[in-house]
Amino acid sequence: MGAEKRGLLITFEGPEGSGKTTQARWLAHRLRERGYPVHLTREPGGTAIGDAIRELLHAHEHADLVARAEALLFCAARAQLVEQVIRPFLAAGGIVISDRYADSTLAYQGYGRGLDLEELRRLNRFATGGLQPDLTFLLDLEVEIGLERRRASGEAWTRLDAMDLSFHRRVREGYRALAAAEPERWVIVDAAQPLEAVQAALREHLLRRLGLEI
Amino acid sequence: MGAEKRGLLITFEGPEGSGKTTQARWLAHRLRERGYPVHLTREPGGTAIGDAIRELLHAHEHADLVARAEALLFCAARAQLVEQVIRPFLAAGGIVISDRYADSTLAYQGYGRGLDLEELRRLNRFATGGLQPDLTFLLDLEVEIGLERRRASGEAWTRLDAMDLSFHRRVREGYRALAAAEPERWVIVDAAQPLEAVQAALREHLLRRLGLEI
Repeated sequence: MGAEKRGLLITFEGPEGSGKTTQARWLAHRLRERGYPVHLTREPGGTAIGDAIRELLHAHEHADLVARAEALLFCAARAQLVEQVIRPFLAAGGIVISDRYADSTLAYQGYGRGLDLEELRRLNRFATGGLQPDLTFLLDLEVEIGLERRRASGEAWTRLDAMDLSFHRRVREGYRALAAAEPERWVIVDAAQPLEAVQAALREHLLRRLGLEI
Repeated sequence: MGAEKRGLLITFEGPEGSGKTTQARWLAHRLRERGYPVHLTREPGGTAIGDAIRELLHAHEHADLVARAEALLFCAARAQLVEQVIRPFLAAGGIVISDRYADSTLAYQGYGRGLDLEELRRLNRFATGGLQPDLTFLLDLEVEIGLERRRASGEAWTRLDAMDLSFHRRVREGYRALAAAEPERWVIVDAAQPLEAVQAALREHLLRRLGLEI
């Protein structure tokens, strides 16, 4: 299934409040200004069925959702997004930027909730047909700072935000472990820096890793 | 995870209109009359999140749902049902009767839509933690008769009913192949027979296979 891929898939990962959404939008904007065809998306979501799944996942009423069902729901949204949106856009030579992707499942349901990482990797392969990002930015941030930023932003407080601190710490450490194990794909960016410094880091790595000048 | 299992899991499988729902209800009723603790459920559904997933799956608006996302959604509902409902009931020594279970994924998304059977088996193992039925009834029926019964019943016509005839034929053949490969678990019942003959067959096999007199 990977044969037709021509474009680039760039993903943003990180804990809540690390600025993924802001940076993904900024990057999409800069690339479009440079004339690149860009599709900006997010997980879970990005398709009609994915948005419906997102609503299920974020609803407080489903606080009893078990970890395996949660992982399968994220992967269902991902499978739809990859086949319906990402692969066609890449096949046409475009750049897809996604605010979260398969690594989130490893970080949250694996490191966070304790499901087996190998089983989750197989699940991700099933969902994505093996499609891996060309570059993944980890916006790394101390858990307390991230949650405080979420609170201050006034955005809706979801079922996942409400997990305890030790959960969010495991997620953060999980992300760092994933990045350390695959340094050729990941870039760790200190998200506690001022916005301009974060963007300078993104700019530098895009040029160095992918030859993209923004 | 299977160590705590003490009760019995009996599942009904078969094409649309084969009478699974009617027979599952009848069996639950008969077993309860005999004093057995019985939980009757169905897939997808049987939990709050499962019912929400069922609505997603049956909605006509999601006709563009891709096969992998479909399989993952069914498995998400299954994971929730197994962990939240089926395992606790079995651990307490009860009998769970389910109108569809993991074999439906193999028949519909595997044989029907052409996804790889081994990948789907792994997905089922992830969703169920390996929990297999003690006995599975395949209510076997010619595809045309089943669809005609569904139409005549006045029940809502779902996204899956609307698939073409060749899809439903592949599903039926898939079911027969699954039953043939694992005869110690499956019983094939001719669902074109009168109701009483179907029930006599169920009664006979429950006694012979599980020692259950109803």
